[in-house]
Amino acid sequence: MRIEMAEFGLRGGEERVDATLAVVRALDACRNSRERTELIFAEGRYDFHPERATEFAPSITNHDQGGTRKTGFPLTCLRDFVLDGQGAEFVFHGPMIPFWLERSSDISLRNFTVDWDRPMFEQGIVTEATDTSFDFRLPPDVPYEMRDDGLYFEFGGRRLPVWGLHDIDPVRKTHAYGSGDRLSWSSFRKLKLQEIEPGLIRVTGELRHLPEPGHAITMRFGRRENPGFFVNGCANVAVENVTLHHAPGMGLVAQRTAGLTLRKFDVKLKPGSGRLVTATADAVHFTNCRGTIRIEDCLFENQLDDPCNVHGVYVRIVEKVADDKLLVRFEHEMTVGLEFAGPGDALKFVSRDSLLPYASATVRSWLPVNAELALISFDGPVPEEIGERDVLENETWNPDLLVRGCTVRANRARGFLITTPGKVLLEGNTISAPGAGIKLSGDANSWFESGAVRDVTIRGNTFRDCNYCWPDWGRAVIDIDPEIEEPERHPAAYHRNIRIEDNDFITYAPALVYGHSVDGLTFRGNRIRESGSYPTREGQETAIELRAVTEADFSGNRFERAGQSALLNGEEVPL
Amino acid sequence: MRIEMAEFGLRGGEERVDATLAVVRALDACRNSRERTELIFAEGRYDFHPERATEFAPSITNHDQGGTRKTGFPLTCLRDFVLDGQGAEFVFHGPMIPFWLERSSDISLRNFTVDWDRPMFEQGIVTEATDTSFDFRLPPDVPYEMRDDGLYFEFGGRRLPVWGLHDIDPVRKTHAYGSGDRLSWSSFRKLKLQEIEPGLIRVTGELRHLPEPGHAITMRFGRRENPGFFVNGCANVAVENVTLHHAPGMGLVAQRTAGLTLRKFDVKLKPGSGRLVTATADAVHFTNCRGTIRIEDCLFENQLDDPCNVHGVYVRIVEKVADDKLLVRFEHEMTVGLEFAGPGDALKFVSRDSLLPYASATVRSWLPVNAELALISFDGPVPEEIGERDVLENETWNPDLLVRGCTVRANRARGFLITTPGKVLLEGNTISAPGAGIKLSGDANSWFESGAVRDVTIRGNTFRDCNYCWPDWGRAVIDIDPEIEEPERHPAAYHRNIRIEDNDFITYAPALVYGHSVDGLTFRGNRIRESGSYPTREGQETAIELRAVTEADFSGNRFERAGQSALLNGEEVPL
Repeated sequence: MRIEMAEFGLRGGEERVDATLAVVRALDACRNSRERTELIFAEGRYDFHPERATEFAPSITNHDQGGTRKTGFPLTCLRDFVLDGQGAEFVFHGPMIPFWLERSSDISLRNFTVDWDRPMFEQGIVTEATDTSFDFRLPPDVPYEMRDDGLYFEFGGRRLPVWGLHDIDPVRKTHAYGSGDRLSWSSFRKLKLQEIEPGLIRVTGELRHLPEPGHAITMRFGRRENPGFFVNGCANVAVENVTLHHAPGMGLVAQRTAGLTLRKFDVKLKPGSGRLVTATADAVHFTNCRGTIRIEDCLFENQLDDPCNVHGVYVRIVEKVADDKLLVRFEHEMTVGLEFAGPGDALKFVSRDSLLPYASATVRSWLPVNAELALISFDGPVPEEIGERDVLENETWNPDLLVRGCTVRANRARGFLITTPGKVLLEGNTISAPGAGIKLSGDANSWFESGAVRDVTIRGNTFRDCNYCWPDWGRAVIDIDPEIEEPERHPAAYHRNIRIEDNDFITYAPALVYGHSVDGLTFRGNRIRESGSYPTREGQETAIELRAVTEADFSGNRFERAGQSALLNGEEVPL
Repeated sequence: MRIEMAEFGLRGGEERVDATLAVVRALDACRNSRERTELIFAEGRYDFHPERATEFAPSITNHDQGGTRKTGFPLTCLRDFVLDGQGAEFVFHGPMIPFWLERSSDISLRNFTVDWDRPMFEQGIVTEATDTSFDFRLPPDVPYEMRDDGLYFEFGGRRLPVWGLHDIDPVRKTHAYGSGDRLSWSSFRKLKLQEIEPGLIRVTGELRHLPEPGHAITMRFGRRENPGFFVNGCANVAVENVTLHHAPGMGLVAQRTAGLTLRKFDVKLKPGSGRLVTATADAVHFTNCRGTIRIEDCLFENQLDDPCNVHGVYVRIVEKVADDKLLVRFEHEMTVGLEFAGPGDALKFVSRDSLLPYASATVRSWLPVNAELALISFDGPVPEEIGERDVLENETWNPDLLVRGCTVRANRARGFLITTPGKVLLEGNTISAPGAGIKLSGDANSWFESGAVRDVTIRGNTFRDCNYCWPDWGRAVIDIDPEIEEPERHPAAYHRNIRIEDNDFITYAPALVYGHSVDGLTFRGNRIRESGSYPTREGQETAIELRAVTEADFSGNRFERAGQSALLNGEEVPL
């Protein structure tokens, strides 16, 4: 069945009517159809406002929690559904989640652009800098308010305080060398912002970084609440030929979803807009998914966080309430309310210190108690001995990952964050980040992100200038750092089988790989050239530094500058 | 199947462990049973804390909206279930909804008491009063805080400002003569509270009422968020031999529920506690229910709002979005998010001015858009002409009401509020209220409560001293006042067939019945005695005053004081 939005009064004209309710009606018609449905938009602009938008109360992984959200496209309980924008431009106003997919399967979204009328960030230009202050000018057309406690901008009818600044190099259009988060988060709280004349802001206080005149300052405000796409409990979702210019949250976030393909899904700056930020958090983020996550021919640039993160979640065991029942808690406030497990899932019991599994069990039921707590019943008794603060990991919900032909660049933080035991292949991508280009971590301390890798191939990629905000966000281009104290002390490694082959590293600093707690690491056939893009800096001086690593192979690499070496479990090895 | 709570480690002892999680586990076992289940508590005390309690995001009719709530008994998706407390005492701590019933049927709850460790109100004693101020003493054991903007108490770990005072006569244990809301709501905001010595508060400002020394002052703080029982979308629910001493909200609230019996369900002061308040809002409240609401042998006393309200909801028509589709809005912020209608329901189109229906239609689907808005699809086209701000009423979801053998007294506001077209019988009750004892209203202006009555019998009841806070909360003992301007102007009456027969009125003031827009009102065979309880006052001077009333019958009443009359459509008629 083919449904044209024109049947619901939307013809993509220039009237800028609120399209929200017509889309709700069209989707309701699609939901009632028993056959494959294609919903077709005519090319043109469609505006979406919160007033008549569908409201829901989600728990969105790695976003700020609580309250309700509004969405433009409530793609819930749909089967075999295609949305074809035919080049349409969907423009959102204020806090909204453009696409909400839940309990839907075989969904294809294609051929459209998503943007905001006014994005949830602002930017200015540095006019002057001294040793103890810098000034920047706000754009003339943006309303702002200076209060005693800071600088406020409006988003969605609310005044929100700026809580972070970023120094952006106007030529490279990315975070300035060495800037990192040194004017943001806790460092921002030690700064003082004053209006010295209308539209001109002076920054003083404990300046940990000094931007140069001519540089841009991007300003962060608001909470991380509204991703561009929120995919929850779905199967077989494809997003193709879609461009997202902004989101007041991540670009796309998926959780407990089986099979997801992104092809020509670009999170990119809006041409001609002069903007320097796209999404205000990660471009794409996957928590406890399974099947294959396929990311092909995508561009992820200028987000205010990582381009891609694939991981599971560790939940903490609070109490054994019966032989076959555990009370568990989500330890990170941004993961509360997740559907961590379901009947039939295999869970692993993981020692908190070593992060090594010591038992597994099959779930009979998952009963959420409140946002933080849930009761898990198992098919049989759980282990007699459970260590204090041990965690559980879901073995069933872990995806394979294929990333091919993508470009990531100019965002804040790292490149690809990968913690999944599934088969991982990154091939033919171009990767640049102010931190590590690839990070394989895992921890049960802060983010509680699970997923020791078992089979990772990083092949034929080009790494261009990573870690230019060192020491923020990573030690080396490829940073393997599961959060395990004294990894040498444990009987087995956390990660396994990481192959880094046939890549080009074009880099201003020597550090290519840092890693610990790995069984089987191959760095072979790579080509390393110097970029000279940035001044030399401190930090890891060898190309490779590994601790608690077994079965390492460093053969056949070509270094532009001879005499490079690796530090393997404390011993220097020539490369 | 019989499940003892002892199987889950709860034996009703004196340990005061948190029972919350054990109850969740027991209910989960009951939910998985395919046969009738009885969950049995041993007599004793059981404590419930929010930390491990089930959380949900409800829309509770006539309560403050937004956010999540915690519950002690998540009675969801249960069939054929009995909870027998065997005299147990369930004690709650902080903001919680003790019983949450949703999508459950054939449920019986019996033989227990519900109370709070610390209730959400406080009370003091007036020590002195002048023409321009009064002082009251706080109880010595209650922590409080005096800030610039007022007096704060703690509830559930939060400091909450007092927003209303009530003057309570210590002998009658009810609202003092003429006190009403004159120290509460907007009048409270014109008062100033100062601490003149530790534990002693002086009240000055625009005093609209002056309490006497020796009177008690009850203090209101907090929002109306947590009823004792919340029943949503259920069928055949019975609550028997249950006592509720407090709720930080209504005692029991039911919405879209078919069939509900309350027998010996008492909302009453805790003996020996010295408390003067039970629930902080209505004792029982029913919105858009159907089947029979049966209330027998219950005592509802000392709530901070009406003992009983039975009504439907009018939703406003915002826009015709297609021939068979309307966008509608909940106009009162305390009704947002209700499931107003479902497939097959008959809805009436009601003119906003006359409140008279002019068309009806059958619902094909109800699609909530957000808390305020929903889309209704009908089986066929809706009327061509819909008046601006006209409303819809649900004809299918209206209950019959039987109230027998109950006593209501000493609460704030009115007695029984009844707006339902179902068959209504109030028989053998004892009714006393500071406002009207019975109020039949209906409005599309403020509360948007629907339900013109068709068949009401008020028979064999005893009315003792109502309206002692006149003019707040009602003109006469029985107050029939649908909010219709110029009711004479409309072709038909709003209410129909109200029979007031064989009742005893023991009253200090002459006004027995006020009414307008009624077709068929009988006041027959009643006995009226004078109580002399309070001074005479102004107000309605005739026993009966009716406007726009047809088919009135006033025969066979016996007045202790002769010479009473009725004012019928402007003409005085002797009684």
